[in-house]
Amino acid sequence: MAIATRAERQTYADRFEEELFAQVLPFWERHSPDRIHGGFYNNLDRDGSVYDTTKHIWLLARQVWMFSKLYRSHEARPVWLALARLGMDFLRTHAVRPNGQVYFCLAQDGKPIYQQRKTFTECFYVMALAEYGRAADQPGLVQEAKSALELLWTRSYDWSTVGRPALAGSPPSQALAIPMMLLNVLDEVMADELKSCMREVEDCIRRITLHVNAADQLVYEHVTPEGGRLPGPTGRLINPGHAIEAGWFLQHLAQRLGRADVSRMALDMVRWSHRRGWDAEHDGLYYFLDSEAHAPVQLEWSMKLWWPHCEALYAHLLNYAVSGEAADWAAFNAVEQYTFAHFPDASHGEWFGYLDREGRRTHRFKGGPYKGCFHVPRALWLCLRLLKQWPAGRPAP
Amino acid sequence: MAIATRAERQTYADRFEEELFAQVLPFWERHSPDRIHGGFYNNLDRDGSVYDTTKHIWLLARQVWMFSKLYRSHEARPVWLALARLGMDFLRTHAVRPNGQVYFCLAQDGKPIYQQRKTFTECFYVMALAEYGRAADQPGLVQEAKSALELLWTRSYDWSTVGRPALAGSPPSQALAIPMMLLNVLDEVMADELKSCMREVEDCIRRITLHVNAADQLVYEHVTPEGGRLPGPTGRLINPGHAIEAGWFLQHLAQRLGRADVSRMALDMVRWSHRRGWDAEHDGLYYFLDSEAHAPVQLEWSMKLWWPHCEALYAHLLNYAVSGEAADWAAFNAVEQYTFAHFPDASHGEWFGYLDREGRRTHRFKGGPYKGCFHVPRALWLCLRLLKQWPAGRPAP
Repeated sequence: MAIATRAERQTYADRFEEELFAQVLPFWERHSPDRIHGGFYNNLDRDGSVYDTTKHIWLLARQVWMFSKLYRSHEARPVWLALARLGMDFLRTHAVRPNGQVYFCLAQDGKPIYQQRKTFTECFYVMALAEYGRAADQPGLVQEAKSALELLWTRSYDWSTVGRPALAGSPPSQALAIPMMLLNVLDEVMADELKSCMREVEDCIRRITLHVNAADQLVYEHVTPEGGRLPGPTGRLINPGHAIEAGWFLQHLAQRLGRADVSRMALDMVRWSHRRGWDAEHDGLYYFLDSEAHAPVQLEWSMKLWWPHCEALYAHLLNYAVSGEAADWAAFNAVEQYTFAHFPDASHGEWFGYLDREGRRTHRFKGGPYKGCFHVPRALWLCLRLLKQWPAGRPAP
Repeated sequence: MAIATRAERQTYADRFEEELFAQVLPFWERHSPDRIHGGFYNNLDRDGSVYDTTKHIWLLARQVWMFSKLYRSHEARPVWLALARLGMDFLRTHAVRPNGQVYFCLAQDGKPIYQQRKTFTECFYVMALAEYGRAADQPGLVQEAKSALELLWTRSYDWSTVGRPALAGSPPSQALAIPMMLLNVLDEVMADELKSCMREVEDCIRRITLHVNAADQLVYEHVTPEGGRLPGPTGRLINPGHAIEAGWFLQHLAQRLGRADVSRMALDMVRWSHRRGWDAEHDGLYYFLDSEAHAPVQLEWSMKLWWPHCEALYAHLLNYAVSGEAADWAAFNAVEQYTFAHFPDASHGEWFGYLDREGRRTHRFKGGPYKGCFHVPRALWLCLRLLKQWPAGRPAP
């Protein structure tokens, strides 16, 4: 396995830059804005036409976050800030309830359709609020996002029944999704002031660590509140893309806080999840696996989805930047090859989202209830940023 | 296309009898009973071993119904009644709450894990109660089942928000699942006294009819309470197996009540759903389709599941017994060939449940949270009963 040369890194940077700015972002800039009711359409067919006018708030909030982030971190293009404002105005007018809850989806005119019990919608909204507030230079919005954190914290652990089984037969459990989401929210919302909430950060790290099983070299999606194994398929569930995403969340934090222990664990989470999650026969990352090689009960377990590949693309590159080990570079290359061979759509921009195990497209849409302007541009932007600011002293500089 | 000969029908009857009594039922008789805590295990691996001790009440109730039905309608084998009792005792001890609600799943010792808002669990329990009460000659249980019907009726339409959108942006809608389920419950529970609740029966027929669109020759899964089209993917959703199952439910009713109009509609529901639902390239019935050829948002849309094929097997045979038309016989033959080539497991009995679009097995388990001792034995038993009691005057008697 080779070590990356500067020329190789430049080749990747050029490819990601072209893909992000000529193929992916234009798709959303062109097709998603709703100039009549405000906000964005997120259910977009292959060619960008709207096949469902329902507005899913996870995706609207993530799109506001993405354009705000690009405006602040890449280039202050007025069109990006204007798009972020179009989304944020719609969210604030229609999606937020007086009690702080945020609707899961709205009709195109903003009338509410559905309210989820889970708090992920609120998490994405608060991240959008903070990033937009900074981009638009509205510190009041950033303050509002910070104030929302406390409520979010309580509510997130409330619905997951951590330590408090709702019914007598249900063993106490915790899901990786929650501490990992909250860590990302803390990191994004608190930004430079992260050190002021280290108690919460340490709690997230502690909870995530419970899912990381060194003996099995696996990251379990659900464990007991003490980190023990849960019975049945729930306890055996592996979600490689999720564990890989949690890995780079933690690595960011480890680098910022100078925590070598967390950095080592984050490297392992990505490597183990790739090793177990990669399909040796047909390539690509499985969506779900069972740790004891049963077939997971999820019908879609063997499908290859765009987002685990987006997460893996960045996570392996980051691993390599941190470790300098050839195996991390090789994993990045394998993911990059599979991803660019299967997901992009040169004809209409953005990426396809769903393949069967053999890599054939099963769905033609570019945006759906869980796919929007988020995973693809975030991964390409993160990779690009890392390749351009390659850490000094790292291999083959 | 050929018309069925008596010899062909006998060949099928022999195959179904062998499959039902030598392969399918022994699997459940052998592997599902929990002699320690009572009830059945339903999460059984390929070889019958228990991979999850959670007991899913849909499936426990359906298994009680199935063994009670076979005891009453096929042969009074004491072992079948004893199995039905093992299940029913467990359900009555652990699954039923004082307010009449029934838990969705329990731990192996009967402790509750989860309560669904939907009423399907209650529907399957009430059907089991009536059938077991008749098999065990306990008229009190049958009466209890009849008394539960009224509450079930109100609650079923309550959660579906028919005519009463919970939130302003959600258009009023109704799901085919509910009137179709309630019609089946009425038919099973009231049995010979069905005529005493014709108001409810007619209401079910009326509601099902709203989903049947003659202009499009399609059965829509979700419509407005007036039978209009709903916007978006929800309004375009086609579930061929579901529509085919509703077709034979209605055909049974049409034959019992002598309703030629309902019989004609039921024939069409099965034929249209087969025509639209059959995969011309790889054979088999799709799980979900979009009426305008978008990819359905359901990730598993192109998979081939055992249960739509079970429903289609019986529905086409019933269509042919009613109509005598060669096309119905041809459809039955096509489904039978695909089904027997893909789902049975000669090594361990019962059928596999899940295939990808190309017909490759994706899951090895025989029982899961939604697959138990129900669709396979019900379809084989219904086909066998029809083939043995072939209506006089029907083609090639």
